Amino acid sequence: MNLLETINNPADLRKLPRHQLKPLADELRTFLLDSVSKTGGHLSSNLGTVELTVALHYVFNTPHDRIVWDVGHQTYSHKILTGRRDQFHTLRQLDGISGFPRRVESEYDTFGTAHSSTSISAALGMAAAAKLKGEQRHAIAVIGDGSMTAGMAFEALNNAGVEEDCNLLVILNDNDMSISPPVGALNRYLARLMSGQFYAAAKNVGKSVLPGPVLELAKKLEEHAKGMVVPATMFEEFGFNYIGPIDGHDLDSLIPTLQNIRNLKGPQFLHVVTKKGQGYKLAEAEPILYHGTGKFNPAEGIKPATAPAKITYTEVFGNWLCDMAAKDERLVGITPAMREGSGMVRFNAEYPKRYFDVGIAEQHSVTFGAGLACEGMKPVVAIYSTFLQRAYDQLIHDVALQNLDVTFALDRAGIVGADGATHAGNYDLAYLRCIPNMVVMAASDENECRQMLTTAYHYPGPAAVRYPRGAGIGAAIAQELTTIPLGKGEVRRQGERVAILAFGSMVAPALKAGEQLNATVANMRFVKPLDVELVKQLAADHDYLVTVEEGCVMGGAGAAVAEALAEAGIVKPLQMLGLPDKFIDHGDPAKLLASVGLDGDGIAKSIKQRFLGGEPRLVVNNG
Amino acid sequence: MNLLETINNPADLRKLPRHQLKPLADELRTFLLDSVSKTGGHLSSNLGTVELTVALHYVFNTPHDRIVWDVGHQTYSHKILTGRRDQFHTLRQLDGISGFPRRVESEYDTFGTAHSSTSISAALGMAAAAKLKGEQRHAIAVIGDGSMTAGMAFEALNNAGVEEDCNLLVILNDNDMSISPPVGALNRYLARLMSGQFYAAAKNVGKSVLPGPVLELAKKLEEHAKGMVVPATMFEEFGFNYIGPIDGHDLDSLIPTLQNIRNLKGPQFLHVVTKKGQGYKLAEAEPILYHGTGKFNPAEGIKPATAPAKITYTEVFGNWLCDMAAKDERLVGITPAMREGSGMVRFNAEYPKRYFDVGIAEQHSVTFGAGLACEGMKPVVAIYSTFLQRAYDQLIHDVALQNLDVTFALDRAGIVGADGATHAGNYDLAYLRCIPNMVVMAASDENECRQMLTTAYHYPGPAAVRYPRGAGIGAAIAQELTTIPLGKGEVRRQGERVAILAFGSMVAPALKAGEQLNATVANMRFVKPLDVELVKQLAADHDYLVTVEEGCVMGGAGAAVAEALAEAGIVKPLQMLGLPDKFIDHGDPAKLLASVGLDGDGIAKSIKQRFLGGEPRLVVNNG
Repeated sequence: MNLLETINNPADLRKLPRHQLKPLADELRTFLLDSVSKTGGHLSSNLGTVELTVALHYVFNTPHDRIVWDVGHQTYSHKILTGRRDQFHTLRQLDGISGFPRRVESEYDTFGTAHSSTSISAALGMAAAAKLKGEQRHAIAVIGDGSMTAGMAFEALNNAGVEEDCNLLVILNDNDMSISPPVGALNRYLARLMSGQFYAAAKNVGKSVLPGPVLELAKKLEEHAKGMVVPATMFEEFGFNYIGPIDGHDLDSLIPTLQNIRNLKGPQFLHVVTKKGQGYKLAEAEPILYHGTGKFNPAEGIKPATAPAKITYTEVFGNWLCDMAAKDERLVGITPAMREGSGMVRFNAEYPKRYFDVGIAEQHSVTFGAGLACEGMKPVVAIYSTFLQRAYDQLIHDVALQNLDVTFALDRAGIVGADGATHAGNYDLAYLRCIPNMVVMAASDENECRQMLTTAYHYPGPAAVRYPRGAGIGAAIAQELTTIPLGKGEVRRQGERVAILAFGSMVAPALKAGEQLNATVANMRFVKPLDVELVKQLAADHDYLVTVEEGCVMGGAGAAVAEALAEAGIVKPLQMLGLPDKFIDHGDPAKLLASVGLDGDGIAKSIKQRFLGGEPRLVVNNG
Repeated sequence: MNLLETINNPADLRKLPRHQLKPLADELRTFLLDSVSKTGGHLSSNLGTVELTVALHYVFNTPHDRIVWDVGHQTYSHKILTGRRDQFHTLRQLDGISGFPRRVESEYDTFGTAHSSTSISAALGMAAAAKLKGEQRHAIAVIGDGSMTAGMAFEALNNAGVEEDCNLLVILNDNDMSISPPVGALNRYLARLMSGQFYAAAKNVGKSVLPGPVLELAKKLEEHAKGMVVPATMFEEFGFNYIGPIDGHDLDSLIPTLQNIRNLKGPQFLHVVTKKGQGYKLAEAEPILYHGTGKFNPAEGIKPATAPAKITYTEVFGNWLCDMAAKDERLVGITPAMREGSGMVRFNAEYPKRYFDVGIAEQHSVTFGAGLACEGMKPVVAIYSTFLQRAYDQLIHDVALQNLDVTFALDRAGIVGADGATHAGNYDLAYLRCIPNMVVMAASDENECRQMLTTAYHYPGPAAVRYPRGAGIGAAIAQELTTIPLGKGEVRRQGERVAILAFGSMVAPALKAGEQLNATVANMRFVKPLDVELVKQLAADHDYLVTVEEGCVMGGAGAAVAEALAEAGIVKPLQMLGLPDKFIDHGDPAKLLASVGLDGDGIAKSIKQRFLGGEPRLVVNNG
């Protein structure tokens, strides 16, 4: 670890002689593997970008030149080389460094990323700004082949291709992989490009076929063909100068190529081929397994868990999907490139014809589902709460407005932990319940999640079920596919004076708080349609109402209760607990929830302070 | 009008001999021009699709075969031929037929459209459903070249290209125009395709150059070249069979081509060239002017207004943008292909380097703005409220999370009138205010709109100003660029007992209601940060609080007031007025607002019924 320790920023790196870069890259890879195996984190993608990162910081004048890393889970080498080596052991932990680039963390993190396919847009904005300000700087987007399938990347390419005097470089990091196996026509196209046949064929079209006398003519023909007929690559059609493909692990290819590109004008497109997991055989063999890891022993690799882990909500969904599919052949399952994360591996295996991985294409996934629903199929769109933000208009305009029968399974609702604010599923209750025709449920335990999915599935319009990341409380799961009554909550604990109206994951801590306070606790189940009768009854029987949700207070489930009270003309002291109006950083979910008062003790404490003789805050003001 | 009157559905059309289709198309065009000039509506696009519509319904077995019309404002001929000729005079009027396809209106309207670029996704869903169900039917998406620039269309192409056994036909209706002039690399590419050189060159590459003896060889070479080297068109790279370009006004090209395609398997791509405004010289010459029209005399064409019309909010924004740009060279203006609709024609002319039309690419527009903001520019993104739904994730993840200084000018907030539910800007207050770091304002008049834009611009983080479609109350507009205090509302009328907390466009009717009831009326100005001190003061000084907003009640500004009251521990009778939880159809905006009780009389009536001795509804319930 001699070389790496001397690199405290890219300026140090740029002082190294070329021949030391390869040993540095090797040290970096070792450091990465060692560190990630202790903290957990993204591994495969980071092993794949070691050389590219070294080369970029070596050739370009960072941070003056801007590098925007698409998705950003491949930036560990970048972080280590830009002054964060010593903090790297705090990766993805509370108050530690983020697993993604963040502007607040370093001037080298020029743009915060985590959701895919934003990099070209952001880098183009930076390049346009440099042009307007008369500044000489390069803006570089590094984007994977998976991210390239999202429409947003194409929107940016389409716009960039006409900004002819911008210093924009798009680097396609082609590792033939998104998190799930790659899909779609673009991937096939890239595979053809990568095979080398494309360019080789174009160049040799005359030579290999034509003998002596017609060779001259063939050359002319080839020229003619190149100019007029062959648009070379799709990226050139978009107005970029296409270079590649080159080996992204070969510094002797990368560095001279980048040095050449540095001197070219206009939008440049460099196609780099890398291997996820490069240099760690186990990850090379199973890049999906090593995509995001917990702690493991690098010598042994990731071991199958010995004791069966608690079932996660993701698995509850995956099992439900297969069981429901067995009963109803109209069911189709749709994922925007999140087969593993959404628990659809088994469904894919058992029902391949009814499984649709549409690529990183949230917008399309929802409207594709709408089209299927028009024809009487029963689409289930499995999507993280945070990624449904990408398809918000499609949900409103294509599904809800037409009242189409699409079921949304929203994983990762609420606090997500190590991925942090970019992945937080904190807004779905607010952004979904304002849409007419929607049914919105929040699961309080694993069994209820299954029941809610069944309920949503049978509901003949758009319905969403949200559930948190990870395991639940360990509820026994009934195998029958039963529904719950639409818009009906249930009282889970009868107490007095205070009624806690809890939604989804907050039912369990609310019950703990209810024990402490002898409060009534209701599992409201439905955010929309809200159980207004239950709200009225709880209001009539109690002095104080408290709502609790794992979501933003603003516009969320608590606001729904307030609206219902106002609509019913009920005037009653009300407290709304939930996530505060700020972005919440990465860290352990339980600790994060406790830090915002959403564990049992925190809920009890808030209620006591407000209503039950703690620090007095209640102002009864009836005019 | 003899032929057209005999066509009550496409089955009638299919009985016609081929030679009658041309006269029918001519009658249809005359009918269209005559009718739209009386009702107003979209003209240019509909004149451009007459022959294509006739040909599609003639060749395909509609409604068994599914046609999905992208955007759908070009479906007037389709509506007239599918049984709605006699209702066509009710176009876009209250209880009349919609200007867009709607599933509830006709079985021939297979998918409701209005926002662009959804058609391929929906048609692919239909094609996939047919395959799963073993049904023989065609699914056809008709999409314009403008719509093709949106990422969603590419996501669908990328997915469709690998669905090899789906009966999907994508028809690119290439008229070299979106609503604003076309931009982007794709448009340039299509222009090259359209020039005809491309295919002609590919086909004739051997024949024209090579004489006698080498012709055979050249043919082999051409074969080889077609298979290996020439990917022909971008659409073939996506896995489609590309046919075209053909003349979309020539029934003798269209019909045989469509008949041939009907028998082909796998994803087909037909490139049709049409002319917006075809057949009406004035519209051909000025397709943007005739894109959406009011009533006019077809013989005279659209005349410049004689009396200057009341200034619209769109113009207020456009003027502000130029004035602000004159003061601050960091200002850049961004539009996703809505230069005219967003009032940016003058800005484009005066500040061409700082004007960015990024194409129909809402997602990219916002993140492109974020990139500019990172470099110290001051981007103003002008976008309709309904279209910001397309960039919701980008607003959260790329702008708000990084607290970047981007100003959002949200036109068409609230009820939009003739365009109907698809274009309603009813949800922005709910979906924006739940996002941390956002500042959200609603303008109550033209002058305040200008002040709010200035305020948003100077605020060093993300800030949105929403304003309604059309003209305001006619307030005098001060030319200075003044700001208003952040998070401060103002009392506009001092009354007693009832305080009406009005937001944006509802301030004017609230003042009328206030007169009737002698109620206090506050112009709240800020939905976020809410003026909590003003809320508290109004609560202390009045018996009843009423919120009014032109937006969904669920999660909206009224909910913000309820949250503030709960947070402050204030218990007070509260009524929330706003748009009901349903999609509201097209019609005259004033009538629509009155129909949901959001005019002065309606507001007064609701308050009387609830609080002031009308039909009693108040239940004071303090436990």
